[in-house]
Amino acid sequence: MSRKYDNKTISFCPEGRLRQVEYALESIRNGNSVIGIKTNSGIVLASDKSMSNTLGENNIYSDRIFLIDNHIFCVTTGAGPDAHILINHARLQTQLYKQIYQDLIPVKKLVNVLCDIKQQFTQSGGKRPYGTSFVFGGWDSFFGFQLFRTDPSGNYSGWKAVAIGINSILNQSILNEEAKNCLDIYSAIGTIVKIYSKKISKINLSQYIDLVTLRRDDLNNILYHRFNDEEIDSLYMKV
Amino acid sequence: MSRKYDNKTISFCPEGRLRQVEYALESIRNGNSVIGIKTNSGIVLASDKSMSNTLGENNIYSDRIFLIDNHIFCVTTGAGPDAHILINHARLQTQLYKQIYQDLIPVKKLVNVLCDIKQQFTQSGGKRPYGTSFVFGGWDSFFGFQLFRTDPSGNYSGWKAVAIGINSILNQSILNEEAKNCLDIYSAIGTIVKIYSKKISKINLSQYIDLVTLRRDDLNNILYHRFNDEEIDSLYMKV
Amino acid sequence: MSRKYDNKTISFCPEGRLRQVEYALESIRNGNSVIGIKTNSGIVLASDKSMSNTLGENNIYSDRIFLIDNHIFCVTTGAGPDAHILINHARLQTQLYKQIYQDLIPVKKLVNVLCDIKQQFTQSGGKRPYGTSFVFGGWDSFFGFQLFRTDPSGNYSGWKAVAIGINSILNQSILNEEAKNCLDIYSAIGTIVKIYSKKISKINLSQYIDLVTLRRDDLNNILYHRFNDEEIDSLYMKV
Amino acid sequence: MSRKYDNKTISFCPEGRLRQVEYALESIRNGNSVIGIKTNSGIVLASDKSMSNTLGENNIYSDRIFLIDNHIFCVTTGAGPDAHILINHARLQTQLYKQIYQDLIPVKKLVNVLCDIKQQFTQSGGKRPYGTSFVFGGWDSFFGFQLFRTDPSGNYSGWKAVAIGINSILNQSILNEEAKNCLDIYSAIGTIVKIYSKKISKINLSQYIDLVTLRRDDLNNILYHRFNDEEIDSLYMKV
Amino acid sequence: MSRKYDNKTISFCPEGRLRQVEYALESIRNGNSVIGIKTNSGIVLASDKSMSNTLGENNIYSDRIFLIDNHIFCVTTGAGPDAHILINHARLQTQLYKQIYQDLIPVKKLVNVLCDIKQQFTQSGGKRPYGTSFVFGGWDSFFGFQLFRTDPSGNYSGWKAVAIGINSILNQSILNEEAKNCLDIYSAIGTIVKIYSKKISKINLSQYIDLVTLRRDDLNNILYHRFNDEEIDSLYMKV
Amino acid sequence: MSRKYDNKTISFCPEGRLRQVEYALESIRNGNSVIGIKTNSGIVLASDKSMSNTLGENNIYSDRIFLIDNHIFCVTTGAGPDAHILINHARLQTQLYKQIYQDLIPVKKLVNVLCDIKQQFTQSGGKRPYGTSFVFGGWDSFFGFQLFRTDPSGNYSGWKAVAIGINSILNQSILNEEAKNCLDIYSAIGTIVKIYSKKISKINLSQYIDLVTLRRDDLNNILYHRFNDEEIDSLYMKV
Amino acid sequence: MSRKYDNKTISFCPEGRLRQVEYALESIRNGNSVIGIKTNSGIVLASDKSMSNTLGENNIYSDRIFLIDNHIFCVTTGAGPDAHILINHARLQTQLYKQIYQDLIPVKKLVNVLCDIKQQFTQSGGKRPYGTSFVFGGWDSFFGFQLFRTDPSGNYSGWKAVAIGINSILNQSILNEEAKNCLDIYSAIGTIVKIYSKKISKINLSQYIDLVTLRRDDLNNILYHRFNDEEIDSLYMKV
Repeated sequence: MSRKYDNKTISFCPEGRLRQVEYALESIRNGNSVIGIKTNSGIVLASDKSMSNTLGENNIYSDRIFLIDNHIFCVTTGAGPDAHILINHARLQTQLYKQIYQDLIPVKKLVNVLCDIKQQFTQSGGKRPYGTSFVFGGWDSFFGFQLFRTDPSGNYSGWKAVAIGINSILNQSILNEEAKNCLDIYSAIGTIVKIYSKKISKINLSQYIDLVTLRRDDLNNILYHRFNDEEIDSLYMKV
Repeated sequence: MSRKYDNKTISFCPEGRLRQVEYALESIRNGNSVIGIKTNSGIVLASDKSMSNTLGENNIYSDRIFLIDNHIFCVTTGAGPDAHILINHARLQTQLYKQIYQDLIPVKKLVNVLCDIKQQFTQSGGKRPYGTSFVFGGWDSFFGFQLFRTDPSGNYSGWKAVAIGINSILNQSILNEEAKNCLDIYSAIGTIVKIYSKKISKINLSQYIDLVTLRRDDLNNILYHRFNDEEIDSLYMKV
Repeated sequence: MSRKYDNKTISFCPEGRLRQVEYALESIRNGNSVIGIKTNSGIVLASDKSMSNTLGENNIYSDRIFLIDNHIFCVTTGAGPDAHILINHARLQTQLYKQIYQDLIPVKKLVNVLCDIKQQFTQSGGKRPYGTSFVFGGWDSFFGFQLFRTDPSGNYSGWKAVAIGINSILNQSILNEEAKNCLDIYSAIGTIVKIYSKKISKINLSQYIDLVTLRRDDLNNILYHRFNDEEIDSLYMKV
Repeated sequence: MSRKYDNKTISFCPEGRLRQVEYALESIRNGNSVIGIKTNSGIVLASDKSMSNTLGENNIYSDRIFLIDNHIFCVTTGAGPDAHILINHARLQTQLYKQIYQDLIPVKKLVNVLCDIKQQFTQSGGKRPYGTSFVFGGWDSFFGFQLFRTDPSGNYSGWKAVAIGINSILNQSILNEEAKNCLDIYSAIGTIVKIYSKKISKINLSQYIDLVTLRRDDLNNILYHRFNDEEIDSLYMKV
Repeated sequence: MSRKYDNKTISFCPEGRLRQVEYALESIRNGNSVIGIKTNSGIVLASDKSMSNTLGENNIYSDRIFLIDNHIFCVTTGAGPDAHILINHARLQTQLYKQIYQDLIPVKKLVNVLCDIKQQFTQSGGKRPYGTSFVFGGWDSFFGFQLFRTDPSGNYSGWKAVAIGINSILNQSILNEEAKNCLDIYSAIGTIVKIYSKKISKINLSQYIDLVTLRRDDLNNILYHRFNDEEIDSLYMKV
Repeated sequence: MSRKYDNKTISFCPEGRLRQVEYALESIRNGNSVIGIKTNSGIVLASDKSMSNTLGENNIYSDRIFLIDNHIFCVTTGAGPDAHILINHARLQTQLYKQIYQDLIPVKKLVNVLCDIKQQFTQSGGKRPYGTSFVFGGWDSFFGFQLFRTDPSGNYSGWKAVAIGINSILNQSILNEEAKNCLDIYSAIGTIVKIYSKKISKINLSQYIDLVTLRRDDLNNILYHRFNDEEIDSLYMKV
Repeated sequence: MSRKYDNKTISFCPEGRLRQVEYALESIRNGNSVIGIKTNSGIVLASDKSMSNTLGENNIYSDRIFLIDNHIFCVTTGAGPDAHILINHARLQTQLYKQIYQDLIPVKKLVNVLCDIKQQFTQSGGKRPYGTSFVFGGWDSFFGFQLFRTDPSGNYSGWKAVAIGINSILNQSILNEEAKNCLDIYSAIGTIVKIYSKKISKINLSQYIDLVTLRRDDLNNILYHRFNDEEIDSLYMKV
């Protein structure tokens, strides 16, 4: 009976739920696995690579990790093309904010703007929700390092450590236990490598995951770093 | 037979009702529990936290309580992203009013404007109603402290004490008996803590509810205060 | 078979009727009860309060009675949010007329404009009819005191005494007999109190009905008066 | 099988007919009865009053007879609110014509413009036909007195004597025999009174019908006259 | 199975046909009978009158024959209101052409423009085809006298003698034999009268048909003439 | 099961095909037969006449063959009114090109532009594909004589000899064998006459086909020639 | 049950997938076979010709290979007309970039822009996805030679060697083994010829495939070369 309510974005089903949004969430549960951990010294985000063929060149052209500005970056899961559109919005908003206020956009402000866009696509007819979730990591002078996840519905929430995409329930439960031990960025990397290496061959880890960090150096500069293959492979050694 | 009338916002069913609006109400009945009490000395609003995971950082980033202006704030239940959009409208209207009339917007005026927006989404095609209810608390020089609830249909009503969201029927019936004893803001806080503590572990109350007050000090300034964790936990001691 | 014609505003059913408009009327038959009586010395309008909870503060914030201008007011039944939108239109038209013609808008002119708006929502696709009926009372120099009712279809008609909303058929039949005895505004109030007191406890009448009058004083000023609780309760004494 | 073609304005059914237009016509066959007779000395139009309650004040506020300009008036049957919208168009066109050509609009020209508007609502999607028919009476210097009927389809036709609305078939057949005897405006009034008095109590005829005439006086002025109650009741005496 | 393709203007059925256009053609097959004959000395067009009642005044107000400009006229069958709209377009285009080129619009150019409009209504959604066919007669300096028929699909074709509307198949077959004998405009009129008089009483022919001619006089002026009742009745005498 | 995918232009069926486009192609397979042959000395295009009645004057007013510019012409099959619209586009583009570049539009460029228009009508909602195919013949200084066919989908392809419309499969197979013998324009005409004369009476060939050629004279001028009846009939003599 | 979700572009099915996009992909799996190989010295792209008739002139007018700018070209498979539209966009963007930045557009930037356009047609109502995939080959100063494939969903990915269209699974698996041996552009051509020659007669290879290369000469100029028939045929000799 509920079939009448699920193929239109704009109508509630009798239980008061929006089916299209729930179906969009379903597409994310099968997307690439993303894990983010926030520590006092910085943020670590990782995603497994959706490499289906050995000839693909995902290394250089990863479309899962985006640097929005020097102090904000994100990892996406779900529909890649949808994510691109939202990233375009995010980068534009970031620059507009800089132009108007002569300051960096606060992390939560950016998440807020993006989620308002997502909400529009759950309420107006003739559209479908964006089938993509993000984990945003960033730093601003108001709240320091912050980690947010956003959903196709336009919901967002702050986290200490979060996992989305495939196996997210399992990964999140591991995080629940491990996150308290992640005192600094290096132990956080170790936790992430541990989670991923349970499912994939351990030797050439760099073929399976992307890894990025955002941290402050001693001069309080915010530094974004994307790990190259050698760095990732050497990580495994350390663990 | 009635199934034909419920998946379009814009049509009445034969009994003269709008099904989509009723379904939107249903989503609110399962939302977070919100309780508001108006006393002579001020207003208390509380909401339980929809914390699903211990790693979530809902404290800093609560998206349930919004300060519209210094003299008006609100708590929402139901679809969070929908609430954000309406809050944007509310804040804009508040500033526009200030700019035009050089005065604070009266509480009822603001509620009125928001509900007219809500109504539009129940009458025009290609849209769905906003799936969110608010409890507004505020003060103005015309009617003093005021407490309003608004519904997805665009209906609003003034209250002495009101409960919406999950368990609202039970909570409202408790309020019906207790509200007459809430002579000042402190006894109102006590009543609210009593209602919530029936359902949750009593010790770390601050993990489960948010609490805000609006009151006048001796100089007749309107003061908005959001309770931090220590304050909330200590509340329980007092009760 | 007729089910195909009723969920679209814009199509006639084979019997030449607009089902959506009839369903909207149905929502009014279950709305609050409104009674209006026109006498030579003025107009009395009353509505029962839709008070569902003792904590509600309907007194101050009644959304059923609206003063459009000093010489025109109305009582509504049916969907409150729809009524608000139309009241906004009415007040705007009233002021526009004043600005253009430097005169008060005639009662029928205002009713006319509102009903043209209502008609639009019964003819264009992607909309639903306004689910609200009004009883307008007013005075102008052309026809003196006038009493109109309007329907969701955009129909309006002039009356000496009229009842809409729940129990309207019974109330109207009582009016048919009593209206001829309503020689002045005081006997009209008595008739209205008599009708309502049949259904509700007689003592605290003020909790159940709102009552407003429009009359001329000896200097021919048009005076609008909304009865407060004491006045309403004392009314019952007199009856 | 034909059910697929009737709930959309814009599509032909396999027999090449527009069902929505036919259903709109159906609503007119149940409307108030309108009779018009054209004589050499003027035009008489009459309509029965749709008075459902003795308290209604249909006399002053009849919404069935409209004076478009000094030389053109009309009587409508079917959906009253639809008629109002078209009357607004008609009055606007009449004044526009006056402004542009410094002359009175010819009767047929006005009918033409209105019917083009009606046609639009039978061809474009998202609309329904206007559910109203008119009998227009008027005088211009080209063709003298003229009597037109218009239909929801946008069809119009000239007549010597015409009946629309309820009982139109019977009334038209009476007219077919009687119209040739209507040499002047007075015998035409007599014929109309005779037709109506067959169905209603004869004594207070004024409670049941409205009657208007358009005629030329000896100075060739075009005079519009709406009969008041006494005049109508006295008419019956004469018959 | 083909029922899915016929209630939308804009889609082909599997056989590659547009059902809506075919249904519109059906409405024309039941319209008034139109006959046109082209001779060297001019063009004759005739239509039977759709007189349903003896009181109707179709003579003066025929809505079947339209003079577009001094050198082009047409007769329509099918939906009258649709024809009016297209005639408005035709007259506008005719004047625009005159204004731009300082010359009379060629007959085929006008037919072309009208048919392009018709085509639009068979391709865009939310519209239905114009349910009307025309027979255009005209003269221009390029091709002399010309006779065109147009269809709801936007098709048009040139003819020596053509019949559309009810009985068109029979009438066309008669024309196929008789047309070669129509050497001048007078024999063409005789042929037309002969065809119509088979179906209607012969005496008062003028009550049943309209007849117009376009011819050149000895000074090569193009003369349009509409026959009045006496002329039509006398025609029968001659036949 | 596939029935759900064919009555909307804009959706793919599960096999990845667009049904509406295929149905539009079907309408072309039943259209008039068009044959085109390209030789070194020029291009010959022919179409059978869709003459249904001996009184029709298709000669002068053929709507199958269009001269776009002096160096490009085309023959159409399928829905005539659709073709007219596209021809309007083609002529406009041709003149725009001339105005901008001071040169003749290349044949392929024109075909390209037209097919982009066709494509739009297969992708946007609320439209249907153009139900018409063209064979374009033309000459430009880049590629000399060229022969293109276009389809409702927006596909086009270059050919040495091509047949579309009814019997196109048979005709194309004949062309496959004969085309290699068409060394010059005269033998190409012979081949075309041979193909058509198999199906129609041979004597008055001019009543059944239209024939046009595009060739270069000795001064390298591009000459378009439409054969009149005598020329066509004499062609048969030669064959 | 899933049938409800597949004929609307804009809705997710319960598994979180977009059926329309998957159906569009299906149309590509049956399109012409495209193979691309990237080597250190350049890129080779090939497509089989969709030649259905020996009279077709696909050589000159291939609509499968497009040169976007001197340093970027692409081969398409699937719906040709859709590809044309996107190519128009690509060329426009390329020139715009040049105008704004006075530099060649980077390959990935162009792919990015095109895929954002593709994404729009998977999210907005009233549209269908573009039914076409591309293999882009190009060179820029950032990443040297690059090979991308794009999908109707708006997804794109970088490759060393890629096969799309019919037999793409088989071809890709061959490439997986052979690509590592493609050290330079000549061995890449050999691999491609080997793959195609398994399915087609080996002698006149030029009738079956198109072949283009992009390489750098000794002066570091980027050279685009389309092989003519002789070159292709001679290729086979070498293999």
